[in-house]
Amino acid sequence: MNRQVIIQDLPKGELTTVHFNVQDGPVPEPAEGQVLVRTILISIDAANRAWMQGATYREAVKAGDVMHGYVIGQVIRSADPAFSEGDLVGGEGRWAEQVLCKGRLLEKLPDHRPLSHLISLLGIAGKTAYHGLVNVGLPKPGETVVVSAAAGSVGIFVGQIAKALGCRAVGIAGGAEKCAWLTEELGFDAAIDYRGGNLFRELRAACPDGIDVYFDNVGGDHLTAAIEVARPMARFAECGMIAQYNETGQPTGPHNVIQIVGKQLKIQGFIVSTHADMQPDFFQDMAKWIPSGQMKYEETVKEGIEKAPEAFIGLFEGANTGKMLVKLG
Amino acid sequence: MNRQVIIQDLPKGELTTVHFNVQDGPVPEPAEGQVLVRTILISIDAANRAWMQGATYREAVKAGDVMHGYVIGQVIRSADPAFSEGDLVGGEGRWAEQVLCKGRLLEKLPDHRPLSHLISLLGIAGKTAYHGLVNVGLPKPGETVVVSAAAGSVGIFVGQIAKALGCRAVGIAGGAEKCAWLTEELGFDAAIDYRGGNLFRELRAACPDGIDVYFDNVGGDHLTAAIEVARPMARFAECGMIAQYNETGQPTGPHNVIQIVGKQLKIQGFIVSTHADMQPDFFQDMAKWIPSGQMKYEETVKEGIEKAPEAFIGLFEGANTGKMLVKLG
Repeated sequence: MNRQVIIQDLPKGELTTVHFNVQDGPVPEPAEGQVLVRTILISIDAANRAWMQGATYREAVKAGDVMHGYVIGQVIRSADPAFSEGDLVGGEGRWAEQVLCKGRLLEKLPDHRPLSHLISLLGIAGKTAYHGLVNVGLPKPGETVVVSAAAGSVGIFVGQIAKALGCRAVGIAGGAEKCAWLTEELGFDAAIDYRGGNLFRELRAACPDGIDVYFDNVGGDHLTAAIEVARPMARFAECGMIAQYNETGQPTGPHNVIQIVGKQLKIQGFIVSTHADMQPDFFQDMAKWIPSGQMKYEETVKEGIEKAPEAFIGLFEGANTGKMLVKLG
Repeated sequence: MNRQVIIQDLPKGELTTVHFNVQDGPVPEPAEGQVLVRTILISIDAANRAWMQGATYREAVKAGDVMHGYVIGQVIRSADPAFSEGDLVGGEGRWAEQVLCKGRLLEKLPDHRPLSHLISLLGIAGKTAYHGLVNVGLPKPGETVVVSAAAGSVGIFVGQIAKALGCRAVGIAGGAEKCAWLTEELGFDAAIDYRGGNLFRELRAACPDGIDVYFDNVGGDHLTAAIEVARPMARFAECGMIAQYNETGQPTGPHNVIQIVGKQLKIQGFIVSTHADMQPDFFQDMAKWIPSGQMKYEETVKEGIEKAPEAFIGLFEGANTGKMLVKLG
């Protein structure tokens, strides 16, 4: 018995549960260099959706594949001398109860509790927020940092790291409840509910001096509005464009790209693994900020492998507050 | 008698001669800090068109203004102690036979012949090409550099500087004649005629390993194609978007902006004056490249102030090869 989530069909447009199939599969045996891992947590990420759109910085996922994703788990059997039975590991795996991984793509994890920290605060979400903001956004104290999908797994840390660095933090999120949580609990200076229908005007009002750093998780009309409100020499850290994954027709780009020239904007995409050499800075800063209570967070946890497709689809409907996770057995 | 070009109306969409009026005006008297200059050369630049679209890095030009632009001329009368009658100067002036300039916005120029070099090769065109390519594009030897409007005042130097730095240079230009000139006379490795209607496919074919540096003078479909063909970590130096100045409706942005994330592209606008601290490097490199014959160029010169509007409009129709200039008297 090894329940797993198979990609039934690749989506053309909106992703729904019909694109997935939960079924039993064999328990594989590790070949040389491989490790069999019992999955404990699956990280549900918007990037997984991008993988379904074709090859990017990595190969595309295909119909018939067990869905790919970041997992944390425990080694059951190892044919890689670097790992032993019982080791706690993390890396790219599959949405399955038992996963065969290449040893060279896994890392051993410390036995930190709660385990979910190793995905959120101290894992891929925290690292993505930190490296994108610090290394690409280059914020200076007193500057205005705006982040979209601000109540999402990465967004919550972008705003809190911005505050820890002495910046003004403005979040864009969906719904009054999330916005209140950002300002009242997480310390954002302002939050804008994009569902209110006045994104551009509210963004302008929340940033009277303009935007210095825009951390983009959304693309679409959010990006267009941010270009409009950007100050000269603003930096855009392009982390994701969740607005565009589910579009059916040709998506439209920001009509105001010409402002990139006149305002001398820098719009730069990044992938967290490119900044791996900065991990010591990340852990050093987090070790300072976490004990002082500056890094609050929430998780949305679904129980059981069969919940993975609905958790994933929920990401694009704003069903999560903070990191979306699936917990197994 | 001081003939000058007045903006009759600001264009909404395509610019034509009806937007300008050539008429006589008074010869102004310099107040304190001002200098009266007899215009010798007017530099006709695509950026002048952007100034008609609204405020950017500088104030907008307005209906009723004498048209703004870069001029080279000789001081007739000075009320700024830094300048004397007879000095050769350059700076932002007006399209008029005699121009009142603020002394602090002028620079004294060396008596270099031909004078047009001080606008093209050693002036704003050469500096824009150099600083955009070197400081924003960050090319490495062996990389592929693509430049749009490659037969224009800036583009010709981008390609030749790329070659001088050991890169592969690919130009995009309008018409077979310009393309032949780029490869046969200026040493570009390849040139693509965008009028052929297969820009994307030809760009892909001319850059089998993808684009490392894209120097953008055009925006529009050229930019979309360049994003498509860009290699991971490519740098885009955004110098101008000539394709978008004459659009009437809402321009469309590149539909494939999502590739900025996956490919980790850096798309950065720049204005030449921001890089003023790099002028010594510019002159040092040019002093090496010009005598060795690596910096060929052409000019398109119109005679008489009344030709300025048609010279300007011609820029957007590809009427120029190399720098477009108006010569007075």
